[in-house]
Amino acid sequence: MSRYWSPVIHSLKPYVPGEQPQIERLVKLNTNENPYGPSPRVIEAIRAATTDSLRLYPDPKASVLRETIASLHNLTPEQVFVGNGSDEVLAHAFLGLLKHEAPLLFADITYSFYPVYCGLYQVHYEPVPLRDDFTIAPGDYLRPNGGILIANPNAPTGIALPPESIERIIAANPDSVVVIDEAYIDFGGVSAVGLIADHPNLLIVQTLSKSRSLAGLRVGFAMGQRELIEALERVKDSFNSYPLDRLAIAGAVAAFEDQAYFDEARGKIIRTRERLAKDLQELGFHVLPSQANFIFARHPERDGAELSLQLRERSILVRHFKLPRIDQFLRISIGTDDQCGKLVGALKVILQD
Amino acid sequence: MSRYWSPVIHSLKPYVPGEQPQIERLVKLNTNENPYGPSPRVIEAIRAATTDSLRLYPDPKASVLRETIASLHNLTPEQVFVGNGSDEVLAHAFLGLLKHEAPLLFADITYSFYPVYCGLYQVHYEPVPLRDDFTIAPGDYLRPNGGILIANPNAPTGIALPPESIERIIAANPDSVVVIDEAYIDFGGVSAVGLIADHPNLLIVQTLSKSRSLAGLRVGFAMGQRELIEALERVKDSFNSYPLDRLAIAGAVAAFEDQAYFDEARGKIIRTRERLAKDLQELGFHVLPSQANFIFARHPERDGAELSLQLRERSILVRHFKLPRIDQFLRISIGTDDQCGKLVGALKVILQD
Repeated sequence: MSRYWSPVIHSLKPYVPGEQPQIERLVKLNTNENPYGPSPRVIEAIRAATTDSLRLYPDPKASVLRETIASLHNLTPEQVFVGNGSDEVLAHAFLGLLKHEAPLLFADITYSFYPVYCGLYQVHYEPVPLRDDFTIAPGDYLRPNGGILIANPNAPTGIALPPESIERIIAANPDSVVVIDEAYIDFGGVSAVGLIADHPNLLIVQTLSKSRSLAGLRVGFAMGQRELIEALERVKDSFNSYPLDRLAIAGAVAAFEDQAYFDEARGKIIRTRERLAKDLQELGFHVLPSQANFIFARHPERDGAELSLQLRERSILVRHFKLPRIDQFLRISIGTDDQCGKLVGALKVILQD
Repeated sequence: MSRYWSPVIHSLKPYVPGEQPQIERLVKLNTNENPYGPSPRVIEAIRAATTDSLRLYPDPKASVLRETIASLHNLTPEQVFVGNGSDEVLAHAFLGLLKHEAPLLFADITYSFYPVYCGLYQVHYEPVPLRDDFTIAPGDYLRPNGGILIANPNAPTGIALPPESIERIIAANPDSVVVIDEAYIDFGGVSAVGLIADHPNLLIVQTLSKSRSLAGLRVGFAMGQRELIEALERVKDSFNSYPLDRLAIAGAVAAFEDQAYFDEARGKIIRTRERLAKDLQELGFHVLPSQANFIFARHPERDGAELSLQLRERSILVRHFKLPRIDQFLRISIGTDDQCGKLVGALKVILQD
């Protein structure tokens, strides 16, 4: 606490990201990174862009990247906003689109950054409890609100909401912005991007950190009708003209251009996920049905925090949240088959004790 | 305007960055970029970091970079904050340190992003007029305030404030944060970094965009006592855990490690600036004394906007601000000797008409 801080700073509860330890030979299944590197074309494009031109500012509109994303999703570049990871894009959405008198609605169990943004920008919100099985009840989103935010698939549960439920929520709230955070959509969910044309209140946020293997490059984006995108642009141009550096723009464009690599990598992850789910169930775990690149599971006879520590002692990192309703669960990122095999092997040993 | 926008968005007046046209053979002297590329060690370091490790998140604390900056300035890493360009660092300072009941003070003529941040975060401010000769009168900063922000050297004037005046302002305002924006400090001004140890209210902001030739990489930083840095960290960790990507961290560290290259490049720019100032004076321009990598000058008989257009017709870009008191001035970034020679040649022709 300090007299120098602006009043809002005193009550902030910053987000705590998963650990990024610099330890070799760790089985790192704690931050939902992709176990496979990015497309070789990404590496090539970045190296080619690494020249004296770094002395020049990047294109503040990142036009090439917005055009690439637009053509992939049958949108116009004016319907695409890009930012420094989807976290920055979400932050701008909180300040620019979700701060109204009526409360913002989001699930009680979801991406734990959402309440942090509300603290930063003083956005009034109401958590909406998930059902006992951790699914979203669309009927809960029909009450008066100043905005709705749904992670689909949800994190850390991995559970996807069917497209008809998404559409029902969007259609029932024509006066509110509905943000669908699709960070994990490429691992089995159905994107709501097709609904943009009919719904001026729909904003979709995606990232290159997961399915495109570029967590280290920091690129996220939003898609929606012009009105919503313009609000994000106004915030961004009042905050930082150039959030994407030249290398991030070049790498992101190349990532989208290698669809074959993308499809292969996510296919592998989906197959590994299904195998891991089965293996965990055989070990007695209760596994939520995941459409993401992670699995959320608990063992009926073992404490979640303790299991997480026991894995850690074996150099295997998974994520454990000390939060109501989910403190018995482990969130396990999908690694390679080999990494997941090591996890299952370690759990077998631990559970025998 | 849209009913979906948060109320604050309606009144925002976003910053307009200088143009980044994709035209070949342009003499681009409009955005204060460095005419020389970054150190070859930067290129090398970035290429070496361009590997499969891009699938992993960067270090959210950017510890290596903070350690590098700290050791350069005899600080501890905990006294250093890094962000996505100094614009992002400044934005966090506005929200975290400069938003109080009493008004923030900054010059009427200074970096035009400052009032934009005030609009975004609803910071109450009072512009403090520069003297007629465009210098800052330190005595104007002794009135009650909620924070003080001084660009040193100032932009777009290029005029530096002497260290004793800076210290006087800092010492006279022990209850306010005084932010010194030293974006251009490496071109001849005296940094206030030596005052940090004695002044808990001093925050210094610098960038790698200008003197380190890395506008395209987006790295800026702040230095100050722990209390102030912690406020910035709290904002950052409530906004975006990883504003610096892996390549930006690697490139920035390498830039600081090549001091010889840095000294040579800024020496060249200073010499070119002095020559250009003389050449412009010989053409009849009134040239403000610059300690930055740009010159602010007006011709007593020619309209600034018109001159800027006439240069543009000759593929030479300079920056013109349509703002009170300075609308007769041109802001000319220091290019190579060759580029500045072309500018002077073009002006000679234009002025003969």
